[in-house]
Amino acid sequence: MAKVKNIDFFTSNRSKVAEARLFLRPLGYSVTWRRANLLEPQLNTLEEVVKVKLASAPLDAGLTMVEDSGFFVHSLNGFPGVYSSYVFKVLGVEGVLRLLEGLPRDAHFEAVIGIRRGRDANLFKGVVHGKVSTQQKGRQGFGFDPIFVPEGLSLTMAELSRQEKVRISHRSRALASLAEWLR
Amino acid sequence: MAKVKNIDFFTSNRSKVAEARLFLRPLGYSVTWRRANLLEPQLNTLEEVVKVKLASAPLDAGLTMVEDSGFFVHSLNGFPGVYSSYVFKVLGVEGVLRLLEGLPRDAHFEAVIGIRRGRDANLFKGVVHGKVSTQQKGRQGFGFDPIFVPEGLSLTMAELSRQEKVRISHRSRALASLAEWLR
Repeated sequence: MAKVKNIDFFTSNRSKVAEARLFLRPLGYSVTWRRANLLEPQLNTLEEVVKVKLASAPLDAGLTMVEDSGFFVHSLNGFPGVYSSYVFKVLGVEGVLRLLEGLPRDAHFEAVIGIRRGRDANLFKGVVHGKVSTQQKGRQGFGFDPIFVPEGLSLTMAELSRQEKVRISHRSRALASLAEWLR
Repeated sequence: MAKVKNIDFFTSNRSKVAEARLFLRPLGYSVTWRRANLLEPQLNTLEEVVKVKLASAPLDAGLTMVEDSGFFVHSLNGFPGVYSSYVFKVLGVEGVLRLLEGLPRDAHFEAVIGIRRGRDANLFKGVVHGKVSTQQKGRQGFGFDPIFVPEGLSLTMAELSRQEKVRISHRSRALASLAEWLR
């Protein structure tokens, strides 16, 4: 029987850990939730944020993982982008809908996962393109899910079942790339 | 003649250095502009941001200074707050005006200066209260100045002369507290 390998996942978000386990357990990896609050720098891209977070994680013997994701509205110059969780907390989806009145509604969700072993770091990115809806709909998921309609669908991310969301989400795509690399 | 003491000011903003010199030269302090780009963490208050920036500045023999400031709109839960320069860059003053339609318009500007000598750190805060105007006016200053009317005035911050602004601004008030302490 193959030895189970461990990944230390630094995040404050329990459901991200559950999602990671879904993808990585079948490959023989256990995922340990490390609640340590790593500082998130104010930088322009998720890649930059993830690199700095990864560098600031305590250096353990094994695999260290961090993740960051964001919602990028094209006609708002990528706002709220790397600040999505802050903007969701203070303005909500209504704030973004208000800013977008009369503007083109293209947007994407993006997730970047960083993995480090010793001094070697690798990044894995997942993106889902779509449009911002004119009203919020649905109760699944979190954050900007209720106002985002993925390309090729007519429902918002928050109207999809958990399984459907896992199939198409930005985070799933990043996890799938990571799984491919680990394999 | 008293010996001139030096303060290393870490900032990417040249005009902040000029403003600091205005307040500190008369007290016998020279201010050296250190352009090093310190990482700004994503935190909730300017005090927290300044503490982390201060801790990350290279530890020199003398006095080390950092500053951070923000525009806090009360009915938007403090947005854009510690993310003011990013939000100004991507949404402009128009974004904030749009978000505020039909809402109360109280706001404040806030600046926090951090000074470190060795392991001792001190923070100095300056605040100016006022209202968000309904349209932008004036060409002085920068950032959200054209939509902010300080309490007791009928002009926006961007309609004030440089001298008038220096007299009432949040940064001036923080610098004045620092000057008081140095004295």
